[in-house]
Amino acid sequence: MKIEGRNAVAEAVRSGKTIDRVMVKNGMRDEPSRALVSAIKEAGIKVHFVDKVTMDGESLTGKHQGFIAFVTDYRYYEVEDLLKDPKNNAPFIVVLDGIEDPHNLGSVIRVCECAGVDGLIIGKRRSAAVNETVMRISEGSANHLKIARVGNVNAAIDYLKKNGVWVYGVEIGGEDIYKADLTGPLALVIGGEDTGVNRLTKEKCDKVVTIPMFGKVNSLNASVAAGVAVYEAVRQRL
Amino acid sequence: MKIEGRNAVAEAVRSGKTIDRVMVKNGMRDEPSRALVSAIKEAGIKVHFVDKVTMDGESLTGKHQGFIAFVTDYRYYEVEDLLKDPKNNAPFIVVLDGIEDPHNLGSVIRVCECAGVDGLIIGKRRSAAVNETVMRISEGSANHLKIARVGNVNAAIDYLKKNGVWVYGVEIGGEDIYKADLTGPLALVIGGEDTGVNRLTKEKCDKVVTIPMFGKVNSLNASVAAGVAVYEAVRQRL
Repeated sequence: MKIEGRNAVAEAVRSGKTIDRVMVKNGMRDEPSRALVSAIKEAGIKVHFVDKVTMDGESLTGKHQGFIAFVTDYRYYEVEDLLKDPKNNAPFIVVLDGIEDPHNLGSVIRVCECAGVDGLIIGKRRSAAVNETVMRISEGSANHLKIARVGNVNAAIDYLKKNGVWVYGVEIGGEDIYKADLTGPLALVIGGEDTGVNRLTKEKCDKVVTIPMFGKVNSLNASVAAGVAVYEAVRQRL
Repeated sequence: MKIEGRNAVAEAVRSGKTIDRVMVKNGMRDEPSRALVSAIKEAGIKVHFVDKVTMDGESLTGKHQGFIAFVTDYRYYEVEDLLKDPKNNAPFIVVLDGIEDPHNLGSVIRVCECAGVDGLIIGKRRSAAVNETVMRISEGSANHLKIARVGNVNAAIDYLKKNGVWVYGVEIGGEDIYKADLTGPLALVIGGEDTGVNRLTKEKCDKVVTIPMFGKVNSLNASVAAGVAVYEAVRQRL
């Protein structure tokens, strides 16, 4: 869905609507426009600067005033919803911390749906949202998975811990994942493509578990790492 | 590396050189040109038809005669090399059957390098070769993995079996992978994005093992499936 016009876009950003990205016309140098661009960026939303022709081509109303926000139609769940009716009495949640590539997000959603996890938590900042690309890459599995999109991943982790869920970060430098017990109420935190799980989030985790590596480059794609870790939990929980 | 000119390209195709793709100028309708295009396609090499300007822009010699072949610089290993010096006395090989997407191939190479597999076998037909994109996606790990590119995947499987390697296809409809013994001399065959392991290849496998799935869409990305299966073997072999 598209939201057009400076005030409408500003209101959408203020209200915390799930905005995928905002298209801004090149050369909007007046003070309110520059303030709005700052607010959009501060909210962690991507800004695409385009020329007038592209802008006019995208506009449905013809009254974009230099701003069009693309709002995700996908209906997210609340974190609380994810803990209801777990498939096996012990909820199994995946938390994504800073996955920016929509292909990786789509691929992780496929992993979660296949593996029967009870829900996926993604952040709003520096993270891909469930947009059309993600839906396509996920082969529609996003429609069969409870996904919560939260402003603060660390607060969501606190909530999980308060509700008896063990939160394990998947990162280098921790306990061998094959020696860790992944059978109880569990949330696995998977980090971003380059950055991994961020320091503050890692400190919140009850434990860090590590996929053993035996090569020289030793770098797994984020969605592959998610697949390996999630399926080790599946194996133990079978 | 680029090979230019009709005869040079024809010779490269005949000699079985590792050709990534061939660029052909639009409208080459003479008999020898049409025969060469057929031979290129028959060898399982991708043909890109482009206009004269693109062609001239790619040409280094100015004498392309409508044909430029892009030859992979990557030095492949022979299948025999993969069975020498396995890291743990029991060789562990991965066979890719029809992975066409260079991103998936690069991602599988990362999995294999991380997991310390002894070698990867890829086919020449309907399969991505190790080109620049694959090298980039693999983050350079292709340089640290023995990769063999073979004209006939089934013949390579026969060779592995003759040398005491158990060949297991990773596909739906087989034995639960978590109940299979993956500790001996082992080759895991991973199928293409949409097609899976082809029927003839599957019949050659000693066993089909299956990643359990619990969702509605139940489709794992090929590189994620490779990660899950390869790492289950790693776990058992630790």
